Amino acid sequence: MKIFKKAILPIGFQASGISCGIKKSGKPDLALFYSNAPAKAACLFTANKIPAAPIVLNKERLKKSKSFQAIIANSGNANAFTGVNGLKDSRYTAQALAKSLGIKKEYVLVASTGIIGKKLPVEKIKNFLTPLIKNLSRHGINPAQKAIMTTDTFAKEVTAQFKLGQKTVTICGIAKGAGMIAPNMATMLCFLFTDAAITQGALKDALKLAVENSFNCITVDGCMSTNDSVMLLANGQAQNRLIEAGGDLVLFALAMNKVCMELAKMVVRDGEGANKFIRIRVLGAKNFGQAKTFALSIANSNLFKTAIYGENPNYGRIVSAVGACGIKVKEMDLKIKVSPLAKKDVFVDVCVGKGAAQAVVYTSDLTPEYIKINAEYN
Amino acid sequence: MKIFKKAILPIGFQASGISCGIKKSGKPDLALFYSNAPAKAACLFTANKIPAAPIVLNKERLKKSKSFQAIIANSGNANAFTGVNGLKDSRYTAQALAKSLGIKKEYVLVASTGIIGKKLPVEKIKNFLTPLIKNLSRHGINPAQKAIMTTDTFAKEVTAQFKLGQKTVTICGIAKGAGMIAPNMATMLCFLFTDAAITQGALKDALKLAVENSFNCITVDGCMSTNDSVMLLANGQAQNRLIEAGGDLVLFALAMNKVCMELAKMVVRDGEGANKFIRIRVLGAKNFGQAKTFALSIANSNLFKTAIYGENPNYGRIVSAVGACGIKVKEMDLKIKVSPLAKKDVFVDVCVGKGAAQAVVYTSDLTPEYIKINAEYN
Repeated sequence: MKIFKKAILPIGFQASGISCGIKKSGKPDLALFYSNAPAKAACLFTANKIPAAPIVLNKERLKKSKSFQAIIANSGNANAFTGVNGLKDSRYTAQALAKSLGIKKEYVLVASTGIIGKKLPVEKIKNFLTPLIKNLSRHGINPAQKAIMTTDTFAKEVTAQFKLGQKTVTICGIAKGAGMIAPNMATMLCFLFTDAAITQGALKDALKLAVENSFNCITVDGCMSTNDSVMLLANGQAQNRLIEAGGDLVLFALAMNKVCMELAKMVVRDGEGANKFIRIRVLGAKNFGQAKTFALSIANSNLFKTAIYGENPNYGRIVSAVGACGIKVKEMDLKIKVSPLAKKDVFVDVCVGKGAAQAVVYTSDLTPEYIKINAEYN
Repeated sequence: MKIFKKAILPIGFQASGISCGIKKSGKPDLALFYSNAPAKAACLFTANKIPAAPIVLNKERLKKSKSFQAIIANSGNANAFTGVNGLKDSRYTAQALAKSLGIKKEYVLVASTGIIGKKLPVEKIKNFLTPLIKNLSRHGINPAQKAIMTTDTFAKEVTAQFKLGQKTVTICGIAKGAGMIAPNMATMLCFLFTDAAITQGALKDALKLAVENSFNCITVDGCMSTNDSVMLLANGQAQNRLIEAGGDLVLFALAMNKVCMELAKMVVRDGEGANKFIRIRVLGAKNFGQAKTFALSIANSNLFKTAIYGENPNYGRIVSAVGACGIKVKEMDLKIKVSPLAKKDVFVDVCVGKGAAQAVVYTSDLTPEYIKINAEYN
């Protein structure tokens, strides 16, 4: 398997990104992802009980349609907590795009990220659909990537390629992250594209597993967003033998896992105000669920995160966080190992007992810059 | 009922506070609270699964003894995550004090607060027991209060007095708080003294109720400490008719509630780095538990707390936090009201539905100062 830290769109995919005026700054804020042929889709959305309008619309469409060809995504406005009118706005955007592209309206999915509770300026979007479509190209993935950023400071792009018989299968993923990063899921948009020919069931299974191991194991601030979405399109144009089960599926799942894991780590590295990249591994737990609970309790502790920021070896805060999550643990079984704090990457190993299960979680430190960014963001 | 924002020790109580050298700064770090006669005790301790040694010792003693006369408390060292030796150190401290005071060793309770994971310097404590005892007086509550402070910036003292027949009953409370404040309980030490004559059962019930409504409804950083303790002594010297049930108990419980609530609010006001005092009231919930879950989810959201710090009316973060806590809520039922952000006290009302239950939670904002304090604290 080959891994590239850049976006290489699979066969049959195009993208574009432009500014349509949603962001006051004039920065790019509208992206389009397009498959030349109808594609299968698998999507995972936030567990937030007040999901944004695009998520409501997508869920509706994923129930009805088996094929999709386009995803339109905007930044600068989350179209969340916008009620019935918000849903109308997402629907209107999707329909206008379908019309402009000349495809079935059911073939369009939508995504939004940015401020919560403000009306989506749909006319601005509509006015820019023509140049958005005109700009579509294989290299358009880079401007598209820029157009989904909010407080991100760098692009998050990964591509995996592997051989299936004589054919090369490509999986390309881009993500936006920054703040509001917590399971389930990380606060972010992630778009994945593959030219693999694969069954609907296998596609869903591979994505679920990959997301569970990656985006659901990262946390920046423990805040769960209303808009988290991982959206995957598979158009089959690699013309590989159909991935259904067995070794082929394992290969595809591993590649998907790798792409999601790399993107997830980039999201943490680019966490709002982050100075440090922290890997927390909990060992010796009874089962994976408990291991992850311990790891997230440490990862979400403001006291732990500020200690790491201050390169302050105050490991009592790890003890305190382990004890705080409600799972029984014996003080004498607890073993803590922390790598040198002066480095940018910090590794924390916590052994909580004699069990066989472990979990790894990634997080960033809590810094004055995080507060500055979020005190001012609107 | 009369409420005083100062500590007035009830009849028969004395206190003192000195420096014994635990804190590098040389600030006061050793406090003693003493009742002239054996008193009943009711205590509530942290739910952290790795409690500090003093808590382990106290729990053991509360099972065995019905009477107590002294509490010795130190700051600068939490005697937490110190294993079997930590427990020995707490026991040694208690025994040395009992000997010096000439009381039964079972009559002493202990408390520690400060850094986790370091050996308690028991010899320093032992060397200063004589002056500590010599300084005991009714006015010694002020130096005692100073000796339990860590990052606190002001003293937290409240006294309630009420009449029962011809007798005046006094309840006096002091607390230390600052960081690591979260239910259950708030990270803090709270010492309560009353001269009320009251049954053991009534004493416990009144304390439990008061703590549930006060210390368990505040959060500064969502971090649960290993040392949280609320310790109440009742020596009966007001010579009131025995409080057992009915109107007398209600009166006592109300006064206890008031003292704990005022102390809890002070703890929030003095939250590490706090600029703002935030009251979050959740209305329209199905039951109190759900209302409190919603309120704490908002109160513990870093994004919400930084928004309040920045006086940034980004109410989407309230929506996001409400949706994140896993309880069903209809977007169209959600109503949010926030008082002007420019003021020091901010009131947030969130109506989540058509239910009859509500809960109030107090918290502070998240500021660069919090990070500075905790990046450097050791």
